[in-house]
Amino acid sequence: MNNTKTALIIIDMINDFQFNHGNMLAEQAQVVAANILKLKQFLTTKGVPTIYVNDHYRLWKADLDKIISYCTNETSRSILEQIQPTEKDYFLIKPKHSIFYGTALNMLLAELEIETLILCGIAGNICVLFSANDAYMREYNLIIPSDCIASNVAEDNEFALKMMRNVLKANTLPHKEYMK
Amino acid sequence: MNNTKTALIIIDMINDFQFNHGNMLAEQAQVVAANILKLKQFLTTKGVPTIYVNDHYRLWKADLDKIISYCTNETSRSILEQIQPTEKDYFLIKPKHSIFYGTALNMLLAELEIETLILCGIAGNICVLFSANDAYMREYNLIIPSDCIASNVAEDNEFALKMMRNVLKANTLPHKEYMK
Amino acid sequence: MNNTKTALIIIDMINDFQFNHGNMLAEQAQVVAANILKLKQFLTTKGVPTIYVNDHYRLWKADLDKIISYCTNETSRSILEQIQPTEKDYFLIKPKHSIFYGTALNMLLAELEIETLILCGIAGNICVLFSANDAYMREYNLIIPSDCIASNVAEDNEFALKMMRNVLKANTLPHKEYMK
Amino acid sequence: MNNTKTALIIIDMINDFQFNHGNMLAEQAQVVAANILKLKQFLTTKGVPTIYVNDHYRLWKADLDKIISYCTNETSRSILEQIQPTEKDYFLIKPKHSIFYGTALNMLLAELEIETLILCGIAGNICVLFSANDAYMREYNLIIPSDCIASNVAEDNEFALKMMRNVLKANTLPHKEYMK
Repeated sequence: MNNTKTALIIIDMINDFQFNHGNMLAEQAQVVAANILKLKQFLTTKGVPTIYVNDHYRLWKADLDKIISYCTNETSRSILEQIQPTEKDYFLIKPKHSIFYGTALNMLLAELEIETLILCGIAGNICVLFSANDAYMREYNLIIPSDCIASNVAEDNEFALKMMRNVLKANTLPHKEYMK
Repeated sequence: MNNTKTALIIIDMINDFQFNHGNMLAEQAQVVAANILKLKQFLTTKGVPTIYVNDHYRLWKADLDKIISYCTNETSRSILEQIQPTEKDYFLIKPKHSIFYGTALNMLLAELEIETLILCGIAGNICVLFSANDAYMREYNLIIPSDCIASNVAEDNEFALKMMRNVLKANTLPHKEYMK
Repeated sequence: MNNTKTALIIIDMINDFQFNHGNMLAEQAQVVAANILKLKQFLTTKGVPTIYVNDHYRLWKADLDKIISYCTNETSRSILEQIQPTEKDYFLIKPKHSIFYGTALNMLLAELEIETLILCGIAGNICVLFSANDAYMREYNLIIPSDCIASNVAEDNEFALKMMRNVLKANTLPHKEYMK
Repeated sequence: MNNTKTALIIIDMINDFQFNHGNMLAEQAQVVAANILKLKQFLTTKGVPTIYVNDHYRLWKADLDKIISYCTNETSRSILEQIQPTEKDYFLIKPKHSIFYGTALNMLLAELEIETLILCGIAGNICVLFSANDAYMREYNLIIPSDCIASNVAEDNEFALKMMRNVLKANTLPHKEYMK
């Protein structure tokens, strides 16, 4: 992994979990958040930038405080406390599933001269999967650590990982493998 | 189904099947081609336009004759003979997985005032699935007849159908249900 | 003008004017800011939403306070005090000339069911002109009040207005004509 | 000029000139066509690819023969005979003003590893100007030979050239300067 050309992308982890099976996803998101955090801390020491791309919760503003305040509830609180962006991280909103659709991400990545994306976050079979395809169509290399994404249903998560590995040529080892 | 606002989209059926498991996909594509053809003939009588969106086979030209000639071989011949576009159909090339990425499809659909897309073609778990998400992000209603798409592996096809039904709100009955 | 389908777009008025001829543009921007403000206040009473789309000053964040703080200086202060967004306004960043390129504007406009854009701001012959063409290609009707845009050089502003009128079919009367 | 990273783009020269002042533009297009042809022949010997990006005349097909047939008339014939694409050239259709909007151009340029675009064609103050801005926003270097574009009105052509030079950093010498 060429650290100077790599970015860590954290998808929809600032989340209110107010949807069908939200509780189920929140439980897994706890584990995933801890893994992402460790990976992020390691990568930060290597100079890899972190970019949050997150649902805007119909606020249509990339105002982090408002989005966190909107999302904070009993289910989400402990996750949000762990995973929220620091001053140094980038924070973009996305209005739809894909991190590229209606966002400045592609331009930011060009400015940072990024060639490889490490995708983490939720849901693995929705926003992560469709974002991964959009990244693939734009010729980025993909790393999607298997224990840094989660989906409502375990089987769907496995399927998404298989698709990203086979169709989108993603590297999908557990996060510790990328901390070397 | 409001016929006046619906378009039939046929994805990558002009295909050379020269890839891993291409023979397996070709076998299923035979069945699918017959179903698509029946659906297309019915919809044509109702005034529904048909739009082919197809891989360009690195010719970078929407020159139908060249693409058919390039794709024709023992495996593909009988499929191509069945399914190829008529003079009245639209024919667009796509350079990547999605029917929207790097194509004029969205503008053509706006000009035709289309709100509902019927997606057919191959591979169900790749180009159809990712195109369906791009259509969903652009607010189109989706119909994806379950017996008009195919994937290398049956299980992958089933999974893609489930995803499109649950996540992208697609209607996925067999094609005969849309011939009423 | 159908108010329920119209949005007011304010382009790059949160500005530091730190560029060639910035002082010249700032002088005109004073006048323009006063006109935009009057128009905005009128349109707000009619239920027309206001959307700021603004350069991000390489902060890559739609954090209004940070951008205002970054932009505030002797030249800009009185303009910024007049024209800054209220809590009710939308605020998007754009990384390049066009208000559509790398932004969620098109999706926001779809959600608000907007068909007509009133474009105001600076520079008339750069970001306003190129944004107007992107709006035209997306089939929006255009109103560009002649006294609500400014360019470094008066001649360039006139030319841009003429182009937008002739090529992009924009309506370009003075702002008072749209306060009826 | 680094020939290996340069592409020649010919905009809307396959034209029926059936619009307001079409005859005026056709007259100038004669001269421009001759210049473009000389430049194209020179650049071809240097290995520079030529990409036509052309209005689709509502045929929604990149079928060169049909478009030429549609466009051929008394006014256009001698221009079309001079300037039409050879087998080796790329030919893309565009549905709107910009060569990038709703086209695969950006992907084709990425595949060819192009960094510099030489833009030629008509109309200089419309499709060429707006395409140039879209190229600039995508970080391409621009060469726009001053005698290889034309607009209905000479003054508008001059203005577009000035804008492209000053705002989009285009190099705008006469075509002979790029034949060295």
